[in-house]
Amino acid sequence: MQFTAQQIATLLQGRLEGDPAVQVSDVAKIEEAKSGSLSFIANPKYEEYLYSSHASIIIVNESLEIERPISATLIRVKDAYSSFALLLEKYDEMMSGRVKTGIEPQSYVAATAKIGKDVYIGAFSYIGENAVVGDGVKIYPGCYVGSNVKLGANTKLYAGVKVYDLCSLGDRVTIHSGTVIGGDGFGFAPLKDGSYKKIAQIGNVIIEDDVEIGANTTIDRATMGSTIIRKGVKLDNLIQVAHNVEIGEHTVIAAQTGISGSSKIGKYCTIGGQVGMVGHITIADGTKINAQSGISKSVTTPYTVLNSSPAFDYKSSLKSQAIFRNLPELQQRLLKLEETVHELTALLSTQNLEYKK
Amino acid sequence: MQFTAQQIATLLQGRLEGDPAVQVSDVAKIEEAKSGSLSFIANPKYEEYLYSSHASIIIVNESLEIERPISATLIRVKDAYSSFALLLEKYDEMMSGRVKTGIEPQSYVAATAKIGKDVYIGAFSYIGENAVVGDGVKIYPGCYVGSNVKLGANTKLYAGVKVYDLCSLGDRVTIHSGTVIGGDGFGFAPLKDGSYKKIAQIGNVIIEDDVEIGANTTIDRATMGSTIIRKGVKLDNLIQVAHNVEIGEHTVIAAQTGISGSSKIGKYCTIGGQVGMVGHITIADGTKINAQSGISKSVTTPYTVLNSSPAFDYKSSLKSQAIFRNLPELQQRLLKLEETVHELTALLSTQNLEYKK
Amino acid sequence: MQFTAQQIATLLQGRLEGDPAVQVSDVAKIEEAKSGSLSFIANPKYEEYLYSSHASIIIVNESLEIERPISATLIRVKDAYSSFALLLEKYDEMMSGRVKTGIEPQSYVAATAKIGKDVYIGAFSYIGENAVVGDGVKIYPGCYVGSNVKLGANTKLYAGVKVYDLCSLGDRVTIHSGTVIGGDGFGFAPLKDGSYKKIAQIGNVIIEDDVEIGANTTIDRATMGSTIIRKGVKLDNLIQVAHNVEIGEHTVIAAQTGISGSSKIGKYCTIGGQVGMVGHITIADGTKINAQSGISKSVTTPYTVLNSSPAFDYKSSLKSQAIFRNLPELQQRLLKLEETVHELTALLSTQNLEYKK
Repeated sequence: MQFTAQQIATLLQGRLEGDPAVQVSDVAKIEEAKSGSLSFIANPKYEEYLYSSHASIIIVNESLEIERPISATLIRVKDAYSSFALLLEKYDEMMSGRVKTGIEPQSYVAATAKIGKDVYIGAFSYIGENAVVGDGVKIYPGCYVGSNVKLGANTKLYAGVKVYDLCSLGDRVTIHSGTVIGGDGFGFAPLKDGSYKKIAQIGNVIIEDDVEIGANTTIDRATMGSTIIRKGVKLDNLIQVAHNVEIGEHTVIAAQTGISGSSKIGKYCTIGGQVGMVGHITIADGTKINAQSGISKSVTTPYTVLNSSPAFDYKSSLKSQAIFRNLPELQQRLLKLEETVHELTALLSTQNLEYKK
Repeated sequence: MQFTAQQIATLLQGRLEGDPAVQVSDVAKIEEAKSGSLSFIANPKYEEYLYSSHASIIIVNESLEIERPISATLIRVKDAYSSFALLLEKYDEMMSGRVKTGIEPQSYVAATAKIGKDVYIGAFSYIGENAVVGDGVKIYPGCYVGSNVKLGANTKLYAGVKVYDLCSLGDRVTIHSGTVIGGDGFGFAPLKDGSYKKIAQIGNVIIEDDVEIGANTTIDRATMGSTIIRKGVKLDNLIQVAHNVEIGEHTVIAAQTGISGSSKIGKYCTIGGQVGMVGHITIADGTKINAQSGISKSVTTPYTVLNSSPAFDYKSSLKSQAIFRNLPELQQRLLKLEETVHELTALLSTQNLEYKK
Repeated sequence: MQFTAQQIATLLQGRLEGDPAVQVSDVAKIEEAKSGSLSFIANPKYEEYLYSSHASIIIVNESLEIERPISATLIRVKDAYSSFALLLEKYDEMMSGRVKTGIEPQSYVAATAKIGKDVYIGAFSYIGENAVVGDGVKIYPGCYVGSNVKLGANTKLYAGVKVYDLCSLGDRVTIHSGTVIGGDGFGFAPLKDGSYKKIAQIGNVIIEDDVEIGANTTIDRATMGSTIIRKGVKLDNLIQVAHNVEIGEHTVIAAQTGISGSSKIGKYCTIGGQVGMVGHITIADGTKINAQSGISKSVTTPYTVLNSSPAFDYKSSLKSQAIFRNLPELQQRLLKLEETVHELTALLSTQNLEYKK
């Protein structure tokens, strides 16, 4: 597929500088762009690429100043970054063939399920009893939607997502392949003989609007009540969310992090990858947690920044980590000092000074 | 669905105090209970909620003493916790629609597979050649059961579980969605040119009775022989169990932990989340390992408690971790001491004392 | 199935010592072999087992010297290890029923897909529009192959693998169950109100020849361009590979490791389990990274060995870790020294020496 600079400028309502007939067939980062690529510059530190890039069309901010002639056609817009993001979206829709509708005949839809308008249900997907599938929902092949599950409007389940009975997803939720919503919480009562008895997990998972969840993540149902993912939350791949956890609005969590049971995470938090969190704690709004940290107690002050395992104040942790690397030298200095003090003590004792240890 | 206090008291063989006709329609923790909720108090520290809870019915221990009037109807039983757990089970069976039987027509069952009585096989599940499916087994939609796999009686595979050829599961095993049993062990022989040659993994996985495994966990088949999960083991989500590992009876492992190849874990161990364990080691019975620990060598003393990475004695590790946080202060103290000693040494040298470094 | 020593010797072109008619029905490690087992000894440290093993047939190196009589039949070959590995492969093919061909009728193959010769497509697998499936490809049940995906010759997808649109796999690639190739990268632009806007991920994943990937691993598509896994790479289970990552030829990565966006890993690296790596860094060829390490910056010297989080030189890290365990003692020594120096200072001040702090 090819587009002219004129077509793109019109779409973005931008101002064109250069050849309106030049064509592009792909999009690329400015440092990787070739002839025929469309690219963008939003951050001033990339402006140097203006003069060396092979891109055929570059989207730039209105205010950008050109110092010497360039070969690319420019399209000036108010906000280069968001204009480019908009183009990515359009391109994505056109290229990936992701926009499907209809119910493929090899799927299974229970007679009692309620299916909205403009829905796509792929082959080998299973829609259970009394499930409610909202308008515009897209369910890719091989998904499982249990009994009494609700999927809000325009929600998208990629291939192989599993949603257990009774869970509820809001509008515009996106879940990537292999993610499991609503598996049993890990609850077992120890018996006297050292074995364990399962505690039935009768709660569910509630996922609010505009949440996106990556691939192969697991979110367990509550023992009682609900595990809750608030609106706008973004979860990466391979994350573990245990039973009765609550994650506040617009919190972002990177891959492979694990949240233990009943912990409550605030709004607007930023949590790195491979973080671990114990159960039954509360994390204040806006907390930032560095990758691989271990959170062993509640965080009460909003916008705290944490690092290390067990985690503490980020800046202090960097100092401790730096000294950790030098522990052999520090130990050596201590040893040398012990020797010196020992010699001083011995020396003074020969002077008949009144020295008591 | 609604139940009266009288119905519940009869089921639990409990003694009723209050209105036998009061009705409940859900179950909740005592601190979250509303009018119409059934709840329980087993732990004395929750007894304060007796007087403030909105629960309509509360299950309590026979021995509980009431200090002032309460609004809820009480049901007194010998063990409030296990009575409540029993109710959860009953509720779970009724509400979740999980009890299914029959072979859904859109499934695939090989002609040579042997299928027991009262089995449920969901649509889009695949039962391979010579597989043996025991009585009462429930296979949810989208599972894969390879050739020559054995599933014991009343075993349950939730949607999308994959069991490779030749693996064997005992009775009453529960496996949650997305878990993979019997993938190839990670075995590659280095060649002289720096590339690797795969070593065929011809063993299998044996899972004994009463094991429960969470979602998206992976248990690899043995190179030769068997990877073995002994009876009563409970594994959480996203755990990695490598080839030829053996996990002893009634050991419990939390989410995202990884066990490397050929390690043998004892009975009755308790292993936290995100723990890593090197290969070819042995862990004594009853070992407790704190979350995020790294186990780099065998544990020979039963009931050892470990923490940190690399792990060592739990109590010692807490002291080291506390000092780690104060390393900048400790370094400062050392520096100050060096200065003082330097001054002392200089001072003494001016005194013509016979001081040799 | 049974095989005679003569049959095996012929297959391996080996020299037989002992009874050519003795039969074996399984294969086992030398220390676990029973009567009827075939085993091997390649490493001199296992030679002691020659005299105690119950194996019926043992494959050994030509050069092995026998010191006293043994009961097993020997087959002498040039390289016992690779001969045994070859037998494992043959055994694997025979026993596991893994060699299937044909398109099972309950699959879905888009009319526009191009399917090669000698292909196996299992039931409930979905092959999307314009997908290209090479000769000899095996797609087990329940896989999803999106639109415009390319699978090279003899590539194997085990049950439940998901490959999103536009991704490309080379020849002889093996992917285990539950792995997700090409999910969206984790890219969201923060908005002024604290919420996030998704950035469309329009790139793909390219996996070159001879790559093997374990179960439930996730490899995200690039934002633009490609996430690239170079030829011969081996990835274990539950690994996270973020958008725009590149992993160099013949690099091996153990389970549960996570690589953040845009990082470039060199060739011939060996990366342990549960390692975390920040984004936008470069790792030199041949780097070795110990399990659970955290890599927070680029590695520029090839064949560096790293450990700890944040990671530094392996040998130094072992020293620091050893001192970490002894921090309480080190702190105690510092305290004692402070006291001694304090006493010395006090003593000297009583001597009317000119001492200034």
